[in-house]
Amino acid sequence: MNIGIIGLGLIGGSISLGLKKYNFGDRYIGTDLNEKNAVHAIKLGIVDEIIPLKDLIRLSSVIILSIPVDHIKKILPSILNKVSENTVILDTGSTKYDICHSVYSHPKRSRFVATHPIAGIENSGPNSAHSDLFYKKNCVFCDSELSAKDAISMAEKIYSIMKMRKIYLTSKEHDFYISYVSHLPHILSFSLAKTTLEKFENEEDILNKIIGSGFISATRLAKSNPKTWLPIFISNKKNLIEAIDIHIDNLEKIRFYLKNKKYHEINHYMKESNKIKKYV
Amino acid sequence: MNIGIIGLGLIGGSISLGLKKYNFGDRYIGTDLNEKNAVHAIKLGIVDEIIPLKDLIRLSSVIILSIPVDHIKKILPSILNKVSENTVILDTGSTKYDICHSVYSHPKRSRFVATHPIAGIENSGPNSAHSDLFYKKNCVFCDSELSAKDAISMAEKIYSIMKMRKIYLTSKEHDFYISYVSHLPHILSFSLAKTTLEKFENEEDILNKIIGSGFISATRLAKSNPKTWLPIFISNKKNLIEAIDIHIDNLEKIRFYLKNKKYHEINHYMKESNKIKKYV
Repeated sequence: MNIGIIGLGLIGGSISLGLKKYNFGDRYIGTDLNEKNAVHAIKLGIVDEIIPLKDLIRLSSVIILSIPVDHIKKILPSILNKVSENTVILDTGSTKYDICHSVYSHPKRSRFVATHPIAGIENSGPNSAHSDLFYKKNCVFCDSELSAKDAISMAEKIYSIMKMRKIYLTSKEHDFYISYVSHLPHILSFSLAKTTLEKFENEEDILNKIIGSGFISATRLAKSNPKTWLPIFISNKKNLIEAIDIHIDNLEKIRFYLKNKKYHEINHYMKESNKIKKYV
Repeated sequence: MNIGIIGLGLIGGSISLGLKKYNFGDRYIGTDLNEKNAVHAIKLGIVDEIIPLKDLIRLSSVIILSIPVDHIKKILPSILNKVSENTVILDTGSTKYDICHSVYSHPKRSRFVATHPIAGIENSGPNSAHSDLFYKKNCVFCDSELSAKDAISMAEKIYSIMKMRKIYLTSKEHDFYISYVSHLPHILSFSLAKTTLEKFENEEDILNKIIGSGFISATRLAKSNPKTWLPIFISNKKNLIEAIDIHIDNLEKIRFYLKNKKYHEINHYMKESNKIKKYV
């Protein structure tokens, strides 16, 4: 069985390495618009061969689409046009509604499985890929009633091999929930980095000597690649704007409490927030 | 030489373990208002003996004050009243201006060294203390011209033993800078946890299955202890409110760009934020 990977970055590369580790499939073939990534992917053993997209589509039993969400949306319909009745195609995009919507009425919709393995890190590219990226992490399956049973089973098998936990949501639910647990945290981290860099302009040495581990974790996501993340923000704009609104409300609340010496309320606010311990 | 530790939690405990590791001093004596902490501190080898505060002050050559900043401010003047001409007393509080101000005109001000070893984690208490907490982390010395030379030298020695990097600032500068790199990130993390918990009320299972490593690092600081952090926020209120203001401005900017499809501007915003890579 040939496994075709479109996009040989962090996610595509890690899926390939994760599946190879457990001897899933026979031959891994790949393609990437970035020639450097393609060369690295061969060197790192992520794929066995780089081949043109049209050959990859023809030769693969399973196609994994791990490119920025705007590119997925753009090429998914034309890939579906070309796949056989038995091919399974799955994507790994961080937003799902736009992508699912783009192929909703496609005659071969059932060959497509919309998934989101939630395991990104701030680094990108094949060099950051590793076989355990997905180990015991969460994977969301979206609108799975629109996929053929055998296609879902194959996708489930793929993520189970890598020991992922599965959850089933509509693409709309996914985009709503993920805006709070992933997209908003990215926005906050980008903004914190920006606020700080502006404040410490020309005081690099002080910044270097005053940061601690709290700042390091709070700005980890600010290192993320705009090529991946801008399309995500755009695609989930409506939910994300609402999440930012609610977050600003909460910030304004704590600012009001501080200004007006309502310390009992701040204490309560922090104690409520502490309940996140149950989850993280 | 006796080392007296007032406050046997994460910071006091880690300093004690860090110094003991390199055989600094002879005997470690301690006190803590929380009896459980005191019992644990003995069990964990953090101190050799628990003694009343007044005896600790009398017997110690070096006193380390590692309790919440409001408590430091409250008891520092009376401790200074009682120390000998040779005792060195240093505090580890996360805000410095209020504390320094409280003893500015004290006749024994020169025996006090105001420091902030920046190495907190979200867990607190003696059980979280470990000897390498400060290894290669940053330590700020504040208003050091008001301390006696021998007192500064002793404090420098203590932090050098634990391999900390030193920086010298006024207490006012410290509080200003630290509001951006520590207090604001805490506020953002508390608010993110609150926003998310409210949104996922009665949907605990979904929250559990949809979080990834990004959310985990973004909410790490939201697990921090209100007993430590509320007094810090109060003590640095003015700077913190300004930092929250600027952060809200930046969030409103990105929200405006999203709403008005100014994607080029968001891309620029993210690329600017990416420059934080140089520091973290």
